[in-house]
Amino acid sequence: MNLLLLEDGDFVAADRVRLSGRRLKHLHEVHRAEAGDSLRVGRVNGLMGRGQLLSLSADTAELQVELDQAPPAKLPLTLLLALPRPKMLRRVLQTVSAMGVPRLILLNSYRVEKSFWQTPFLAPEAIREQLILGLEQARDSVLPEVTIEKRFKPFVEDHLAQLAAGSLGLVGHPGDYPACPRAVEGPVTLAIGPEGGWIPYEVEKLQQAGLQPVQLGERILRVETAVSALLARLF
Amino acid sequence: MNLLLLEDGDFVAADRVRLSGRRLKHLHEVHRAEAGDSLRVGRVNGLMGRGQLLSLSADTAELQVELDQAPPAKLPLTLLLALPRPKMLRRVLQTVSAMGVPRLILLNSYRVEKSFWQTPFLAPEAIREQLILGLEQARDSVLPEVTIEKRFKPFVEDHLAQLAAGSLGLVGHPGDYPACPRAVEGPVTLAIGPEGGWIPYEVEKLQQAGLQPVQLGERILRVETAVSALLARLF
Repeated sequence: MNLLLLEDGDFVAADRVRLSGRRLKHLHEVHRAEAGDSLRVGRVNGLMGRGQLLSLSADTAELQVELDQAPPAKLPLTLLLALPRPKMLRRVLQTVSAMGVPRLILLNSYRVEKSFWQTPFLAPEAIREQLILGLEQARDSVLPEVTIEKRFKPFVEDHLAQLAAGSLGLVGHPGDYPACPRAVEGPVTLAIGPEGGWIPYEVEKLQQAGLQPVQLGERILRVETAVSALLARLF
Repeated sequence: MNLLLLEDGDFVAADRVRLSGRRLKHLHEVHRAEAGDSLRVGRVNGLMGRGQLLSLSADTAELQVELDQAPPAKLPLTLLLALPRPKMLRRVLQTVSAMGVPRLILLNSYRVEKSFWQTPFLAPEAIREQLILGLEQARDSVLPEVTIEKRFKPFVEDHLAQLAAGSLGLVGHPGDYPACPRAVEGPVTLAIGPEGGWIPYEVEKLQQAGLQPVQLGERILRVETAVSALLARLF
C-alpha cells in the first residue's frame, strides 16, 4: 500500500491512531517499519498527510498524524458496468477505485450469469474492502459510491436518461461505431458491457437513454483492461 | 476464449485439426459446443478464420478449418517492463499479448526483488501459455516476442539506444514530468518501472539512451493498470 488509510475507529485522539490487523501486518512485513518512521496516511473520506510511528509491536502500532492535504481529484465520470464474474469483480473494484472513478453502478445484463449475483463479494463490506485496496494503491482517501441495479430495463428506462443528463453518454461496444473520443472536457457517463458484450436490445435501450456506442478497436479486451484503457483514453 | 488457437501439432491434414486437453475442455464446458458448430479459429503465428466442428467427444474434437483472414495489426511498440512480481507477471503477459504489443523486454531494476527472477512463470513455456491466453482473449494469432534482460546497466548502456533509435522513447514515471502524449504517430519505445518506480539512477540511464520521462497523473497505478492505461493513451 502506498497510503495507510485510517478509519474513524482507529482514532484514539484527534491526532493519534492505533492500528492492528491487516495494516499492522503490512507495516511489519512489507514496510518493515520502525518507531520514528514517517508514513503517508489518509483518513477514509477525509484529508491526507503524514503519520509518525510512535510505537510498533506485534499487537499494535501507534501513530501521530497530521492531515492537511486534499485527496487527488476524481474523474468527472459515472461508470456503469455489467456485473463481472466474482474474481474479476474484485479486481475491477480496485481498478475503479485506484483510477479515481467517483460513482460506479453495477448493472445486470443478458450475458451476466445469474450466479454472479450470489457472490459474497457483492456484500457492502466486501465491496468496501476492495475499494480501500484501490485507494491505498493510488494514494486517494475518498471511497467511490457503488450502487447495484439488478434489473436492467427499469433502471435504463426510468433512471438512466436523468442520471446521464448534461454529460457525454457513451457505451463501450465492439463493432462498426466511432472510435472512443480522447481527452474529453466535462462529465461523462460510460457503460461497459459484460464478457461477450451487450446484446443489441441493450445497446438500443442505452442509446434511447442518450448513450452513444463507441469502440476501442477490433481486439476484445477483458473487462478490467477495457476499464483502464477507456478511462485513460477519455481523460 | 474468443478465438480457438491451433498449434502446428493439432493439424492432421492441411484443413483439419484434432484437439484435446484445455481447449477441448473449454469447448465442452464454456462453449457447450456441438458437432456442426462454427467457431472462430486461428493458427499460432498464422492466419485466422472459421472452424466447423466435425465431431466432439470426451477425449477429442475434430474441426475442419478455413484460414483466410489476417490477424489484427500490432502496435508500433517495444515495451520494456521491470520484471513484475510472479502473480502480476502472468496477468501482465496476458494484457500485453491481448493489447497487441509485438515486443516485450522484461528488465531488471533496483526495486525488482531478486526472488522474482526465480519464478517458474519465467520459463519459456510458462510465458507462452500466458501469451496464448491473451491472444485467445483479444482474437489475435501472432505471439509477441519476449526477451529477458537480467542486468539493467549493460542492457541500457550497450543496447537500448540502438534499439530505440528512430522511435519516440518514453519512460513512464510519476513526478514533475510532461504528461504522457496522446495518439502518437510512428513507433514508440516505452519503459515502465517496477512497483515503487525506477530509482533516479535508472531514470538517468534510460534518459541517456534516449527515453524521456512522462507521467500519467498523481495516482500510483498497479503495473497491469499502468500498462493498459499508457497504451490506450499512446495509440
